[in-house]
Amino acid sequence: MTERNRRLVLAERPAGLVDERTIRLEDGPVPRPAPGEALVKVRFLSIDPTIRTWMNDARGYLPPIGIDEVIRSGGIGEVIASESPRYGVGTLVFGMLGWQDYAIVDEKGRGAQPIAPGVDPPVALNLFGITGMTAYFGLLEVGRIVEGDVVVVSGAAGATGSVVGQIAKLKGAGKVVGIAGGPDKCAWILDELGFDGAVDYRNENVAERLRETCPTGIDLYFDNVGGDILDTCLGQLALRGRVVLCGAISTYNDRTRPAGLSNYRNLIGRRGRMEGFIILDYASRYPEAQAALANWLSEGKLVHSEHIVEGLEHAPEALNLLFSGGNTGKVVVRL
Amino acid sequence: MTERNRRLVLAERPAGLVDERTIRLEDGPVPRPAPGEALVKVRFLSIDPTIRTWMNDARGYLPPIGIDEVIRSGGIGEVIASESPRYGVGTLVFGMLGWQDYAIVDEKGRGAQPIAPGVDPPVALNLFGITGMTAYFGLLEVGRIVEGDVVVVSGAAGATGSVVGQIAKLKGAGKVVGIAGGPDKCAWILDELGFDGAVDYRNENVAERLRETCPTGIDLYFDNVGGDILDTCLGQLALRGRVVLCGAISTYNDRTRPAGLSNYRNLIGRRGRMEGFIILDYASRYPEAQAALANWLSEGKLVHSEHIVEGLEHAPEALNLLFSGGNTGKVVVRL
Repeated sequence: MTERNRRLVLAERPAGLVDERTIRLEDGPVPRPAPGEALVKVRFLSIDPTIRTWMNDARGYLPPIGIDEVIRSGGIGEVIASESPRYGVGTLVFGMLGWQDYAIVDEKGRGAQPIAPGVDPPVALNLFGITGMTAYFGLLEVGRIVEGDVVVVSGAAGATGSVVGQIAKLKGAGKVVGIAGGPDKCAWILDELGFDGAVDYRNENVAERLRETCPTGIDLYFDNVGGDILDTCLGQLALRGRVVLCGAISTYNDRTRPAGLSNYRNLIGRRGRMEGFIILDYASRYPEAQAALANWLSEGKLVHSEHIVEGLEHAPEALNLLFSGGNTGKVVVRL
Repeated sequence: MTERNRRLVLAERPAGLVDERTIRLEDGPVPRPAPGEALVKVRFLSIDPTIRTWMNDARGYLPPIGIDEVIRSGGIGEVIASESPRYGVGTLVFGMLGWQDYAIVDEKGRGAQPIAPGVDPPVALNLFGITGMTAYFGLLEVGRIVEGDVVVVSGAAGATGSVVGQIAKLKGAGKVVGIAGGPDKCAWILDELGFDGAVDYRNENVAERLRETCPTGIDLYFDNVGGDILDTCLGQLALRGRVVLCGAISTYNDRTRPAGLSNYRNLIGRRGRMEGFIILDYASRYPEAQAALANWLSEGKLVHSEHIVEGLEHAPEALNLLFSGGNTGKVVVRL
C-alpha cells in the first residue's frame, strides 16, 4: 500500500467551536495489522455532540482525547486486511474508528462489530447505532415512559431527539412536543415525524409555549440541551415528572460554569426525578433495541434523516453543525 | 369557657424572616365543637422549615396559607371536648393544629391521630413525627441506601439530618459525613450521633473537606439545604450517586430565584439520580417506620434532641431559629 493515512488529531483543547488551530490534519503511513488485528478502511463517521466533551481536559465517562491523538469517534468501515479470524475481509464493521482514513481494530478493547447486512451504513449509525440506542433506552429505561405521558424533547430535530419523539408516540405518549430551532425544523417534526407540538426556541418564548402546549405539565422531559431550556422544563414538571438527562449541548462549547438551574426545587414539590445516563452501560441490550427499531422501521413507522457531509477533512465542520443547529437528523461524514 | 383562643395569623407574606409585621397575634373566642368534631388544647407545635414555604404565594404541594389565616403547623394537643366517638376526652392527638391555643379537629380533612401511649410529645413530633418519617423514607425509599454507601447529609445537626445520619449508620453505610454550621454542631454529630465525619460549612471549604472525607465520591447525598452546598455535592457524586431532595432551607427566605445548580451535568457522566419527595405520600406506611425507629430507640441506638421554645407567642422566633441555625435537633414550641 502506497496510500497514506490522513488523521485529524487534537492540536490543542478548544475553548469554543473547533477549528484548524485546535484540530490538525496530518498524515502518516497506513498501519499494518499485527496478529489478532485487522485493518479497516473508514467509510462513515458518526458525528455526535459527546465528541466535543472528550476534547475537554475534564473527568468524564471516558478519558479526554490526548493532545496529538486522533479524534475519538464511532464509525463504520470495511475490513481490508485481517490477521484475526474474527474479521473477514470485506466485512463492514462498527467501532470507535476515529477521524482517520484507516483504523486498526483488535479482539479486545479496540474491537468492532459487524453491522447488520442490508442496512445502509448511515442508517446503521443513526437508528441502529448510538443514536437509536440512546433514544430507546433513555426513554424506556431512564424515563420509564408510560402510556398517556406528556413528553417534551429538546434538540427535537437532532439525531437523538427526532427518534425519541417518534418512539414516545409509538409507546403511547399522550402528547409529544418537540423543542427545535427555527420554523423549518418545527415543521419537519410536526409534518414528517408526527409530533403533536413544536416550540421554536429561537423565535418563541419557550416557557409560554410549553404552558400552552402542555397545560397539565410535563410528565417526561428528555433533555439534550441543558441550560435554560432544561430549567424551564424543570419549572413545568407535572406530579412525578421525570427528566432524562441525555446531553447538554448548549453548554459544551463553554469552558465557564454553565448557567445554573434554579427550578430544581420543583423536584421536591412535584416529587420529580432527574436522572442521567451513559448509553455504553446498555451495550449488552443493544440487540433488543435494534430489533424493536427494525420492526418499526419495516412497518413504516419510523422516519429517519441523515445529514451527510462529504470528506474526512470536513469532520470538524460537521461537528460544529451540531452546535450551530445546521443539521436535521443525524450528522454523518462520508469518506 | 371564658378563656380566649390566641392565634398567630399571616398578616402579610414575608420577604425574609418572619416578624411582627408578617405574623400577627390576635385572639378570639374558643371555638365549640360541632357534631363529629372535637376541641383540642394545643400543647406542642412542630416547627418545620416547610412552614415558611407555605407563607409564599406560590404553587406548592399544599396551598399557600391565606392572609389572615392561622399559620398551618403540625402539633400535639389534648382533646378537651368531643362531639365525636373518634376522639376521647383526655387523649393526646397529632394533627395540623396550627399556631393557636385551641383547634377543632374533625373526622375528615382536619382529622388527628392519637399519639402512641408513653411517648413524650416532643419525641412524638421528632422521631415518630414528620421528621423521623422524612428521614426514614427519604433515605430508604428515595435514596435507596445500600450497605457500604458513602452518605453525606446537610443540615446534619437539624431535626431531619440528625436522624438521617443515624439511620444511615444503622443501615450499614460505609461512611456518614454531616455538613453543619459551627464547631459545636460538628462535635455533636461526631461525638453524640456517631457520624464518621463533619464539615463545618461556616468555617471550612465544603468542596475541599468533602474531597478529603469522601475521596471515592458521594454515593448518597441527602439534601436539606439546596443552593451552593447541593451544587458542591452534585459535583462530587460517585458513579450512580443519588441525591435526595428533601428541603432547600438556604433558599426559603429569598424571594428571588435561588442561585442555580451548575454541576447538574455531572448527573450524566456519573449516571446520577436526583429526586424529590413529599413525606405525606408515605402516610400509609408511617407505622412501618415508627416501628423500626421505636426498636432502635429501645435498643439505645438512636440519639434524639429537641430544642424546646416556651410559649405560643414565640413560635415565629422558633421558626426563625431554623434559618439562623440556632437549634440543634428538633424545634418544638411548648404552649
